[in-house]
Amino acid sequence: MTDHAPLSAKRVALLVEEDFEDRELPLLLELLRAEGLTVTVIGPVADAVYRGKRQEATITSDMAASKARVKDFDIVIVPGGYAPDRIRLRHAMVDLVRDAYEAGKPVASIDRGAQVLITINALRGRVVTCWPSIAIDVKNAGGQYVDRPVVEDGNVITARKWDDVSALTDVVVRVLGGTPAS
Amino acid sequence: MTDHAPLSAKRVALLVEEDFEDRELPLLLELLRAEGLTVTVIGPVADAVYRGKRQEATITSDMAASKARVKDFDIVIVPGGYAPDRIRLRHAMVDLVRDAYEAGKPVASIDRGAQVLITINALRGRVVTCWPSIAIDVKNAGGQYVDRPVVEDGNVITARKWDDVSALTDVVVRVLGGTPAS
Repeated sequence: MTDHAPLSAKRVALLVEEDFEDRELPLLLELLRAEGLTVTVIGPVADAVYRGKRQEATITSDMAASKARVKDFDIVIVPGGYAPDRIRLRHAMVDLVRDAYEAGKPVASIDRGAQVLITINALRGRVVTCWPSIAIDVKNAGGQYVDRPVVEDGNVITARKWDDVSALTDVVVRVLGGTPAS
Repeated sequence: MTDHAPLSAKRVALLVEEDFEDRELPLLLELLRAEGLTVTVIGPVADAVYRGKRQEATITSDMAASKARVKDFDIVIVPGGYAPDRIRLRHAMVDLVRDAYEAGKPVASIDRGAQVLITINALRGRVVTCWPSIAIDVKNAGGQYVDRPVVEDGNVITARKWDDVSALTDVVVRVLGGTPAS
């Protein structure tokens, strides 16, 4: 017997906006679902198609951020590319990340997704990784920047870039109580 | 008689990278040249075509940043859109902005161009404007963010967004000793 719920009972809020990194978000969604997790793609509105910044991939949202309640999710993940620059200005999306963080639930980012963690002031005193262009912003926000694939510090999980999607997935699965399939 | 050189003797270094804001950089280049200023478009390499993030405009570089010397310019201007995210990682471009700033020459940014001014640590204690998504980063870098079209604080000139290109041009012309035509 185990005291864990099955991994399929774990609910992931995966944020989306225009100009996500084409090589990250579709793969992350695929790997999380392949692990059996229940993933809800949350955008500014429901049932909308968002394009990657390279125009090479699209993702359709399942739910509007204004309808999302943090109690319905076990983790919130912020994507990369230039999507986080837009997410920062979406109050409902920022609130969802902040509510999860303040509830002590894990929040994760990849690439420039750490910009949203700066916005909610979640990085002060934490070890953090991100795309190098925003490393100075992470440091100015009180984070300790490191150039590693994935870093876990308390309930804040950060990944560096598209190469690190698989490593991020493994950490998410482990944090949610499962054993990574890879 | 005047003790100013003619405005055509004033040399502007206008930076460019991929994913600039289509509604800003071409118009800024046009307005600066219409004022009679000598504008050099400086990119990672010379004679390369850079596209805006909306794929609606292109700009061709005149000079590679590695060949640019701050003594040859009277002002350096950092564009907006997502170009500054790339410029931050280009050492020769960052060095040009830093050298101008440290020489006491005016440096200007529009939109997210303030990211590069964060990178060179030019905003501490200064009043600054920018695109709102990076306002928190400006504050974390020690700047005092204000939502105004253009702000001049010492040798740092910042403009907010595409609507403010004309107002930025006027300030640049005035700082360089001319009278705006508009």
